Amino acid sequence: VTAGAAEAAAHGTHSIIFGPQERVRRALGSSPSGVEVGDAPDEITNFDEPAQAARSKTNSSIVQAARALGEGRADALVTTGPAGAALAASLIHVKRLPGVYRPALAVALPVPGRRLLLLDVGANVEVRPEHLTQFAFMGAAFSEGVLGVPRPRVGLLSIGEEAGKGTEDVVAAYDKLSSLPSAPFDFAGNVEGFDLTRGEVDVVVTDGFTGNVALKTLEATAKTVVGAIRDAIRSGTVSRLGGLLVRHKLTPLRDTFSQESVGGAYLLGLRGLVVVCHGNSTRRAVANAITLAARGVEEEVVRRTADSLAAAGVLRGRQGDDPASVPADSVTSR
Amino acid sequence: VTAGAAEAAAHGTHSIIFGPQERVRRALGSSPSGVEVGDAPDEITNFDEPAQAARSKTNSSIVQAARALGEGRADALVTTGPAGAALAASLIHVKRLPGVYRPALAVALPVPGRRLLLLDVGANVEVRPEHLTQFAFMGAAFSEGVLGVPRPRVGLLSIGEEAGKGTEDVVAAYDKLSSLPSAPFDFAGNVEGFDLTRGEVDVVVTDGFTGNVALKTLEATAKTVVGAIRDAIRSGTVSRLGGLLVRHKLTPLRDTFSQESVGGAYLLGLRGLVVVCHGNSTRRAVANAITLAARGVEEEVVRRTADSLAAAGVLRGRQGDDPASVPADSVTSR
Repeated sequence: VTAGAAEAAAHGTHSIIFGPQERVRRALGSSPSGVEVGDAPDEITNFDEPAQAARSKTNSSIVQAARALGEGRADALVTTGPAGAALAASLIHVKRLPGVYRPALAVALPVPGRRLLLLDVGANVEVRPEHLTQFAFMGAAFSEGVLGVPRPRVGLLSIGEEAGKGTEDVVAAYDKLSSLPSAPFDFAGNVEGFDLTRGEVDVVVTDGFTGNVALKTLEATAKTVVGAIRDAIRSGTVSRLGGLLVRHKLTPLRDTFSQESVGGAYLLGLRGLVVVCHGNSTRRAVANAITLAARGVEEEVVRRTADSLAAAGVLRGRQGDDPASVPADSVTSR
Repeated sequence: VTAGAAEAAAHGTHSIIFGPQERVRRALGSSPSGVEVGDAPDEITNFDEPAQAARSKTNSSIVQAARALGEGRADALVTTGPAGAALAASLIHVKRLPGVYRPALAVALPVPGRRLLLLDVGANVEVRPEHLTQFAFMGAAFSEGVLGVPRPRVGLLSIGEEAGKGTEDVVAAYDKLSSLPSAPFDFAGNVEGFDLTRGEVDVVVTDGFTGNVALKTLEATAKTVVGAIRDAIRSGTVSRLGGLLVRHKLTPLRDTFSQESVGGAYLLGLRGLVVVCHGNSTRRAVANAITLAARGVEEEVVRRTADSLAAAGVLRGRQGDDPASVPADSVTSR
């Protein structure tokens, strides 16, 4: 984390690192310019119940960082997780955008030649049609502002292309998305599991259960196939020689399919941008995530999200019309 | 289809081919022994509403074949789809096993070195915990009888390994599956998307929406990765040469990941075994599917399923305790 922050600072993005002050300073070494340290001696681990820990461990790095973002001392938040604690701390201190039902966790899928944004991948295991509708706006604003897609094509994940396919909630979301008065994206209708590796849509919207399963299936399949090919090439003398001759072509591909180049997952629908990196992120991955968060700030992804949701009239009403709204303690980690 | 049936007959499995009598006879040529023809001049296509077509098009091949199975003139049914029509015709003419809530569509995932059975992959978009519980028994009986796994390990697809992870329905199914008095399988707890390409469980149970998305994501990712590697190898002179030297190792792998070798999808929970092949199945795929269906008959998969569900006490009660039971007209095609 410290090396990634130093690298991002060298490229012009300043940061505050929250963590046990002395350890952080020691890791930073000669105090590079552009990196401040905020003391946060406590930590939240994968074994803590996220919402409870986010409330009680106020000296943890994630809570301190979320407070800094919520109070305007920072413009965005980058963390190496756990995702559940990041979501819980963000709900408390960064807060949802007014009128947003639920934040969603989005990832850019590691697909060659395109950055397809999939959301939700685990922040909400059960969602209603109006949540899926909002996810489309949240994803489109991020795709345009940060991933640089001019007018994103947004698909709804289902089990067939036709309008009537899928669960009742998916069918209702389809109806809503296909009759929007105003949206900064093109609704491409239903897409299927196949489409997650095709380049025909820019954003795919789904519930956090399905999205989580699809993301992990995609990552694991890519890894399994690459591994099986590598093992096959290594299993004979002639093919090993052939392997030497194709290696220079395959190495860049491996990077394409590795999650590291993607830069993290994004919590969208909050009053500030939150980027959640893998727990085992390298220096490069952390630096990428910081740079990407900075781009989100420059491109005003949060304001764009709020504006487009308002313009389309899909904000949640003021008067408790969402009785089922889930409190922070039911958040789920990725 | 005719060539596949002739091939299966040559290996000892007889069949009746339902279709337009003259076309089928012409395709069969010199009437191989072990293949009968049943006239079915009508057809159900992907554009028909499955349940309605299954009721009205009584002279279609799928309805005729389902009737033959239901009336005991056949022991199993193999079709090249559409899956929705096959399910609808089977519900009407083959019928569910007594006490089974819903049939499920299962596939053996094309993962190297192991046949992992995933169900449901699209027969039921929305399911309740007791349906997921029954799917475990249906999948385990098939895994043992047809895929030859002695005491299958059954996992429940969720978004985390811990017992409390997932939707309310998944959590309830977890509780039921982990407290069964008697089962012919080992319950392995929750598994994640990652586990669909690992070899640690033999059967993975999920709802038809999630299963369909996961299956298509897996198939598309494998295809995309293999294609990207092939393109990369072909993109340079040196790597093309290397490609020639590794080809003999990669060709068998391609078959592993191709759906064709898998032999089809299986409708489980009915009074007879129904195998649904891809619409573009080759002779070999059809022959494989017929052979596999015959193995299911020999190994009495249907009886085993019924016996194990009864022994565990997870059959549906006699008196309409399933008011939400979905009629045949809400079936969904794969």
